[in-house]
Amino acid sequence: MWDDGPMRFDVHVEVRLRDGVADPQGATIERSLPALGFDGVTGVRVGKSMRFTLEAADEAAARSEVSDMCARFLTNPVIEDADIHIGAVAPA
Amino acid sequence: MWDDGPMRFDVHVEVRLRDGVADPQGATIERSLPALGFDGVTGVRVGKSMRFTLEAADEAAARSEVSDMCARFLTNPVIEDADIHIGAVAPA
Repeated sequence: MWDDGPMRFDVHVEVRLRDGVADPQGATIERSLPALGFDGVTGVRVGKSMRFTLEAADEAAARSEVSDMCARFLTNPVIEDADIHIGAVAPA
Repeated sequence: MWDDGPMRFDVHVEVRLRDGVADPQGATIERSLPALGFDGVTGVRVGKSMRFTLEAADEAAARSEVSDMCARFLTNPVIEDADIHIGAVAPA
């Protein structure tokens, strides 16, 4: 598609608490909504959403670097799990 | 698709800081990554990701209720913006 050289990827990482891990923030939201007139909401889970631009040689390299970043720094792998989306690309 | 009556929607709300609003958490991540050996990451923005199940009559009603929840409770509309995704549906 382009010449060699690094490319820029739009990366989106969604960090979620693993199933079974207590989510007090979600529980608080769920408890509060009926008082504000919002009914029918259940199973609220709150996570983090990180977006950034990454320079990498190709999509496989980008995915592997992000996955490494998640394991070492962006998440706590004991209680959290990350969904990685590698998006649009442009030459760097 | 189903008889009348409420349906259950999987809802995903991504809360992001508006463009131009300072993101100290993102800036800290961006500054820290090179020290850990991760290069080429720029423009880090950190937001919240909320997932829940909502009972509503149809998708339009679900979207309108979630949008109202975002404006009144889930976001600070002065500095934050919400992306709403209404997902899979099942009879309630």
